[in-house]
Amino acid sequence: MTEPVRPSGRRPDELRAVLLEPGWAPYAEGSCLASFGATRVLAAASVETRVPPWLRGRGRGWITAEYGMLPRSTHERTDREAARGRQSGRTQEIQRLIGRSLRAVADLQALGEIQIRIDCDVLQADGGTRTAAVTGGYVALALACRHLQRIGAVKKPVLTDSVAAVSCGLWQGTPVLDLDYAEDSAAEADANFVLTGPGALVEVQATAEKMAFPRDRLDALLDLAEAGCARLAEAQRRALGP
Amino acid sequence: MTEPVRPSGRRPDELRAVLLEPGWAPYAEGSCLASFGATRVLAAASVETRVPPWLRGRGRGWITAEYGMLPRSTHERTDREAARGRQSGRTQEIQRLIGRSLRAVADLQALGEIQIRIDCDVLQADGGTRTAAVTGGYVALALACRHLQRIGAVKKPVLTDSVAAVSCGLWQGTPVLDLDYAEDSAAEADANFVLTGPGALVEVQATAEKMAFPRDRLDALLDLAEAGCARLAEAQRRALGP
Amino acid sequence: MTEPVRPSGRRPDELRAVLLEPGWAPYAEGSCLASFGATRVLAAASVETRVPPWLRGRGRGWITAEYGMLPRSTHERTDREAARGRQSGRTQEIQRLIGRSLRAVADLQALGEIQIRIDCDVLQADGGTRTAAVTGGYVALALACRHLQRIGAVKKPVLTDSVAAVSCGLWQGTPVLDLDYAEDSAAEADANFVLTGPGALVEVQATAEKMAFPRDRLDALLDLAEAGCARLAEAQRRALGP
Amino acid sequence: MTEPVRPSGRRPDELRAVLLEPGWAPYAEGSCLASFGATRVLAAASVETRVPPWLRGRGRGWITAEYGMLPRSTHERTDREAARGRQSGRTQEIQRLIGRSLRAVADLQALGEIQIRIDCDVLQADGGTRTAAVTGGYVALALACRHLQRIGAVKKPVLTDSVAAVSCGLWQGTPVLDLDYAEDSAAEADANFVLTGPGALVEVQATAEKMAFPRDRLDALLDLAEAGCARLAEAQRRALGP
Amino acid sequence: MTEPVRPSGRRPDELRAVLLEPGWAPYAEGSCLASFGATRVLAAASVETRVPPWLRGRGRGWITAEYGMLPRSTHERTDREAARGRQSGRTQEIQRLIGRSLRAVADLQALGEIQIRIDCDVLQADGGTRTAAVTGGYVALALACRHLQRIGAVKKPVLTDSVAAVSCGLWQGTPVLDLDYAEDSAAEADANFVLTGPGALVEVQATAEKMAFPRDRLDALLDLAEAGCARLAEAQRRALGP
Amino acid sequence: MTEPVRPSGRRPDELRAVLLEPGWAPYAEGSCLASFGATRVLAAASVETRVPPWLRGRGRGWITAEYGMLPRSTHERTDREAARGRQSGRTQEIQRLIGRSLRAVADLQALGEIQIRIDCDVLQADGGTRTAAVTGGYVALALACRHLQRIGAVKKPVLTDSVAAVSCGLWQGTPVLDLDYAEDSAAEADANFVLTGPGALVEVQATAEKMAFPRDRLDALLDLAEAGCARLAEAQRRALGP
Repeated sequence: MTEPVRPSGRRPDELRAVLLEPGWAPYAEGSCLASFGATRVLAAASVETRVPPWLRGRGRGWITAEYGMLPRSTHERTDREAARGRQSGRTQEIQRLIGRSLRAVADLQALGEIQIRIDCDVLQADGGTRTAAVTGGYVALALACRHLQRIGAVKKPVLTDSVAAVSCGLWQGTPVLDLDYAEDSAAEADANFVLTGPGALVEVQATAEKMAFPRDRLDALLDLAEAGCARLAEAQRRALGP
Repeated sequence: MTEPVRPSGRRPDELRAVLLEPGWAPYAEGSCLASFGATRVLAAASVETRVPPWLRGRGRGWITAEYGMLPRSTHERTDREAARGRQSGRTQEIQRLIGRSLRAVADLQALGEIQIRIDCDVLQADGGTRTAAVTGGYVALALACRHLQRIGAVKKPVLTDSVAAVSCGLWQGTPVLDLDYAEDSAAEADANFVLTGPGALVEVQATAEKMAFPRDRLDALLDLAEAGCARLAEAQRRALGP
Repeated sequence: MTEPVRPSGRRPDELRAVLLEPGWAPYAEGSCLASFGATRVLAAASVETRVPPWLRGRGRGWITAEYGMLPRSTHERTDREAARGRQSGRTQEIQRLIGRSLRAVADLQALGEIQIRIDCDVLQADGGTRTAAVTGGYVALALACRHLQRIGAVKKPVLTDSVAAVSCGLWQGTPVLDLDYAEDSAAEADANFVLTGPGALVEVQATAEKMAFPRDRLDALLDLAEAGCARLAEAQRRALGP
Repeated sequence: MTEPVRPSGRRPDELRAVLLEPGWAPYAEGSCLASFGATRVLAAASVETRVPPWLRGRGRGWITAEYGMLPRSTHERTDREAARGRQSGRTQEIQRLIGRSLRAVADLQALGEIQIRIDCDVLQADGGTRTAAVTGGYVALALACRHLQRIGAVKKPVLTDSVAAVSCGLWQGTPVLDLDYAEDSAAEADANFVLTGPGALVEVQATAEKMAFPRDRLDALLDLAEAGCARLAEAQRRALGP
Repeated sequence: MTEPVRPSGRRPDELRAVLLEPGWAPYAEGSCLASFGATRVLAAASVETRVPPWLRGRGRGWITAEYGMLPRSTHERTDREAARGRQSGRTQEIQRLIGRSLRAVADLQALGEIQIRIDCDVLQADGGTRTAAVTGGYVALALACRHLQRIGAVKKPVLTDSVAAVSCGLWQGTPVLDLDYAEDSAAEADANFVLTGPGALVEVQATAEKMAFPRDRLDALLDLAEAGCARLAEAQRRALGP
Repeated sequence: MTEPVRPSGRRPDELRAVLLEPGWAPYAEGSCLASFGATRVLAAASVETRVPPWLRGRGRGWITAEYGMLPRSTHERTDREAARGRQSGRTQEIQRLIGRSLRAVADLQALGEIQIRIDCDVLQADGGTRTAAVTGGYVALALACRHLQRIGAVKKPVLTDSVAAVSCGLWQGTPVLDLDYAEDSAAEADANFVLTGPGALVEVQATAEKMAFPRDRLDALLDLAEAGCARLAEAQRRALGP
């Protein structure tokens, strides 16, 4: 059987062109512009010397994330959340996912009473903004941790592994990697995987968009994600340099 | 190797006592009080003759869900969201999950321009409130659909399958089914699975709480979920009767 | 002159079946499910060791109440206040009334710097939810105070009396006790009375719904309320036991 | 037994100096500056040709009220509600009371599909602002109704009676009329009465502030209120002229 | 060329009747009712012993302003900002302008850790409310500062100059001073000037309403403003007395 | 007298390097990334076929602007307005300024019932973000208008002139052009000027930051602004091409 041709012309297991540009936000303690094809997300890490109230006095730090989209990052303009006066459920879901993913590879004890906040702002949205945010957010976070070590605010490594994320989906019955907006809109199922550098699972989120899917499809998507995240981990290493 | 004893004393693959009581909210078009052990969630279905603006005039219906917790449903009191003036990110995430899960087994075309809103309110919370909400929400929805067929507002069956949800987790390294609050707080990983009656996947949400986990652990959790959801589907059938 | 027959078939001075079930919310320091006919209100008392800012350091405690309705507690669904982002004027008015009523029988000095918050959540609404909330709220509060004495957090009795509430109204010109929803909708005047166990007045709220009423009608309503509250006080005593 | 001397030096049944100045807000369709001693409330009636959505197409009108306090109308500055972003429970309770009181003497059918909104803004607060608001609000409303009749927008009289309000309270055990701020702060019980010109009851709100009170005290307060409201009705007649 | 006749009949360089009545809000530490023709703004100064968090412990004070309009101060009713739940952009812009203007003539070091809040509430609006607010706000502030000196809370003068504001505009091509509502609505350009007593500039805000205007027009408007503010400064001196 | 050396090393009348990059937001109908030195503002124009309610049916269009800052566009992180749930007064002031400035050069009749919304988002903030927003916003708007003409939605030119903005200030007594953040923080006075291509005034906003300033200083600032805006107009012409 021949596979259907993806709208993007990519092979089922082919990532979009991935570019991780560190230092894009010069005032931040760490930053990265992550491009997955036409999707562009700016991640900026800010170091704060106050942890949230429920953590004070425990000698541990915290890592959290915020997410937003420029109103015209999307094909059709999206309302500005600041003007509407509240963040959507989708926004909150995504920023919680990013925060959990980054904390999964961090030793918060080693961080001490410091909070690092990762702002992930979508400059251009063509599908997969949350996975680009996790992948670029890790680079921004790693740079901020290096900065903290360099200035002596942190004594031992905070990050225990790298972490990256990729989306997969069932498109016309075929498992495909790293969906763009056109593919995502037409997918029968949609999944986001967050994996550590060595390939352990941090988050799995799979959703049937049109109809429920059998268990072997989840396996096939996970195969794609493992390969994809391995390549993203390699791109992160290159971006961070030695 | 002997398995560790769960705080609840249950076997790893043992559900809590599950009780699905239909008709608990007499004014609703369909309702169910779902108890998973000490967790009690009241699901109530309301039929509305207005669909959301973006659906009007298309001849299709909509199914949506709202979720809330009574302030003292929890061991320690939780702030009332109405008093704080906004729903938390967690609440929004859960109500989006319930809505997607129920829509996955519905033929919205068959529903016509009708909206069914499922209110899931937690009367008592001892872990697994979202999975009890999906499982009981399905019963409330099915009763409301029967009501619509009985009064002739809907001509053909709206529901194409049943749907149920269960949580699983890694507790002291062992995969266990249907975590209560004490187990959930101590779990290394936490997953929620939503499956149709025949066992197809609707949603998979797995999260590493303490550290990333290998792929075979996800498989073990999914094995537990398949067996658990099959038993929940059976309980749903009994609750709905012929 | 023959009296008109109430929709409920009750005599003018007849309460609905009243049931006060203590301990319904097991995690709360005190709780009571109060049923007045089909109206069901769950009152749960939470003990907090922080008093409001304006009371700190004065050695006195505070008792406050919050009120909410499950969206489908009503015959037609009511919007969820948490989703709308604010509590209605009616909600705020009711929770202020409950708080004042309970404080009227409490020695806040004896309570010490402790706050007790009474959550009153309407599971089913068929008229008279605020009076059921006060009546059941007192039981929840009394149980919480017993708990505080038992654990030694409070040295002397906090409650100086019991307190209960009932609604009355003019229905087709006749003063009737304890209106249900159908009666309330058709009443010419509507009143809520809060009385202590010995029968002293704590709150009187009477409102002309259709037209102003003469002073002797207020007297007749108050006669009914005195008798009704005496029976409620008796039910409270039985619920609390020795 | 000699009566205690009120802080204001007034006799128990003595109103403060009452001044009702019609036309104080020249752009409004009707207005009145109501002074009860140092308490000054500006009531302004605005005619709107849109009724609330739930009334549209029924040929009936609506009368509603809003209430606010200038931040420095009070002895100590009060936060501006617009800056805090919400109206307090007290504000909402008061504006609901004013609206109900005015609607009790209005024939909404005669008004036709017109809404009259009465803005009651407290310029200076020395106790009794809600009763001054009702009393002055009636004058503003009556002037707006006259205006509507004069321009032919309304064919028959809208108002069926006048309505006025006064506060009473127990001060050192003595029933006193029209409490100022100093008296109100020290009162054992506090009541607001709204009566029509002929003396029928529209609203009774009595609250025990320090301890529950016997029924005969309510009677004594109502005696004072009847006499006080009769004098206020007379002042309203003079203010409105022939 | 003959000048066009202004709707108000005033000469181009003629202020409206200006009245500054000190002490209008008796509970405030300083107050002034400023009337510019039919525009009436009540300014009330409140002394607070808490400065904003970012100023604490620095030995300096702060002066800030809030602005509001009574809903029926305007020809057509304006929505109540407290009811809408937020202050408009216009309101915030105006209160920021008033605060900056008053701080420009204050020695915040001399004030010590005290905050003075100036509430400017528009009782009647016929154009120029923000300039009346600055002009009257200065009088209220000066009275509050005198009060602070008199009670010894402040040792040396806080105010280094007086400050006043006036609007100017291009009306049918002619520069005119102190626009009322009718003139403002028809103006081609609209400017607000804030000047110190000696005539130095504190704020210049000029806006082309219909089309851009040449530089010499700004000069002409500024000529008018200088003369107008000089007369306002004189009125302020008279209002404050020796 | 020698002039003081600006922190930036620039001459008093020297603009920062200005770069206007059209088309930076590819999904928008017009866009421009405007860089003034390290300040970078992305302006994106969105065409909407709905005008605001108060304009409907009048055959005229509308141009409006929204403004936001990425949280880490600033040297120290700024809170995300969407997370705080409201836009600050500063944000609203700026977006109102941008909207007025762009409308001043537009023929809204020629636009027809179309709204163009200009989103100005600050990617990097080093002073002068509002002037960069106006200057780049004009380019985005002009491109959107060209697009509308090309597709025939608009028949005649909408823009009657170009418009650009620049900041000036008094820095150590010297008038200087186009302040960066360091200069702005230390300036004695701060002004923003919006001028049309031919040099007519659209907006003048001058504020004394430390002390009031004499009239001739305003003249000197305006001299600088005229020269600066002329150069910006030239850059706009080059960016838009023929």
